[in-house]
Amino acid sequence: MENDSGLRVVLVAPRNPLNIGAAARAMSNFGFFHLRLVNPYQVAFREAKSAVKSERVLQQAREYPTLAEAIEDCALVVGTTSRGPRALQHPLRRLENGGRLIAKKSGAAPVALLFGSEKFGLSNDDLSYCHWLLRIPTREGHGSMNLGQAVAVCLYELIRNPGAAIKPPIKPAAKADDLERLTELLEELLDQSGYVHARVGESTRMKTRRLVRRMDLTEHDAEVWQGMLRQIRWKLLSLTKE
Amino acid sequence: MENDSGLRVVLVAPRNPLNIGAAARAMSNFGFFHLRLVNPYQVAFREAKSAVKSERVLQQAREYPTLAEAIEDCALVVGTTSRGPRALQHPLRRLENGGRLIAKKSGAAPVALLFGSEKFGLSNDDLSYCHWLLRIPTREGHGSMNLGQAVAVCLYELIRNPGAAIKPPIKPAAKADDLERLTELLEELLDQSGYVHARVGESTRMKTRRLVRRMDLTEHDAEVWQGMLRQIRWKLLSLTKE
Repeated sequence: MENDSGLRVVLVAPRNPLNIGAAARAMSNFGFFHLRLVNPYQVAFREAKSAVKSERVLQQAREYPTLAEAIEDCALVVGTTSRGPRALQHPLRRLENGGRLIAKKSGAAPVALLFGSEKFGLSNDDLSYCHWLLRIPTREGHGSMNLGQAVAVCLYELIRNPGAAIKPPIKPAAKADDLERLTELLEELLDQSGYVHARVGESTRMKTRRLVRRMDLTEHDAEVWQGMLRQIRWKLLSLTKE
Repeated sequence: MENDSGLRVVLVAPRNPLNIGAAARAMSNFGFFHLRLVNPYQVAFREAKSAVKSERVLQQAREYPTLAEAIEDCALVVGTTSRGPRALQHPLRRLENGGRLIAKKSGAAPVALLFGSEKFGLSNDDLSYCHWLLRIPTREGHGSMNLGQAVAVCLYELIRNPGAAIKPPIKPAAKADDLERLTELLEELLDQSGYVHARVGESTRMKTRRLVRRMDLTEHDAEVWQGMLRQIRWKLLSLTKE
């Protein structure tokens, strides 16, 4: 899976090499490879470049002195923010919705997704380049996310695809006659061991049958259970005969 | 927004204070407050506790010597993994679907979401406590995520789309310690009855544990099963003494 789409992840004035590295790693995890850094703290960028696991993203990363230059070729510019709608003069979309728009657009033309510096976020000047803003739905009392985590969450939203979901491996379910044999074995054991409520007649039989059905067994597990119960029955019988 | 739900984020043997702090910060961002640490590297835990921005989560964090103790009260135990379906003996769900299941269940009873150590992930022994596994859909060439980012992405999936109705499950699911008692009873029976493959050591123990988890029992059914197995054990023992 390589989403080598038109997305450009743009970090504006990042200061911490660990965050630059973490952003690059999340990009690599989710198949995005175009990282752009605006006026990064040089020491941080050099340190991050030596980090493992994200070589490709960091090696290809491009540096720009200004945001204007970093987004020059982008048809859509989206800023990320943890601020609520009040303080802003831009349309604000929650990640769940905004993400879909970005994914759609970036198939056709470069889209820039902007993340501000760790301390200050995006400045009003930065925001003025944005078409609209994206908000990760954090709680009101603690909105501000770690930079690397914010990048990871946004990119996950872009690639998330409930349609492509892996369903639990389909293992053949136990057939009715397997379950019936299992039920009978269990009844026999309960009978032999004097299980208090066993053999109160038909109603216990049905209870046991339902219990076994609720286990929702695969064919293989039903066999394992039968093997176990047969062994216990054999032991009980051999002890009874002694 | 406080999702002070039944979710317990369980970090197994975390080693890096930055990661513990990052996990706690993401939890605070998304409104989850129950952090559990299994056998953490003590220096790392102390350092993380002094980190800013996640005081509440870290102050309330609880420590456990073993995973079994950390998940004792949980009705559903889900492990996270970056491994593909081939290597695993558990049902594997992609985050997009698994997340919904977790959100649904954790409305009614505690649910544990397990993250392994930075280097090794969850061990096979850890995995044997899980009902199923969750996979963040990273790309094949670079599956392994940073711990703090993995936590952030999973929790985001749990809180995204708040419009979705959370229906409590009709019947409460069996808790981990009930399932463990059931597993032990079954093992004891298999042992006493000379079940061929029993006690080939730890691997059989884990197989039995997984078998019991796959039954997906309700609390009530787990009790019924325990009653039945106890009765059979009693019978076996009384016959052995004769």
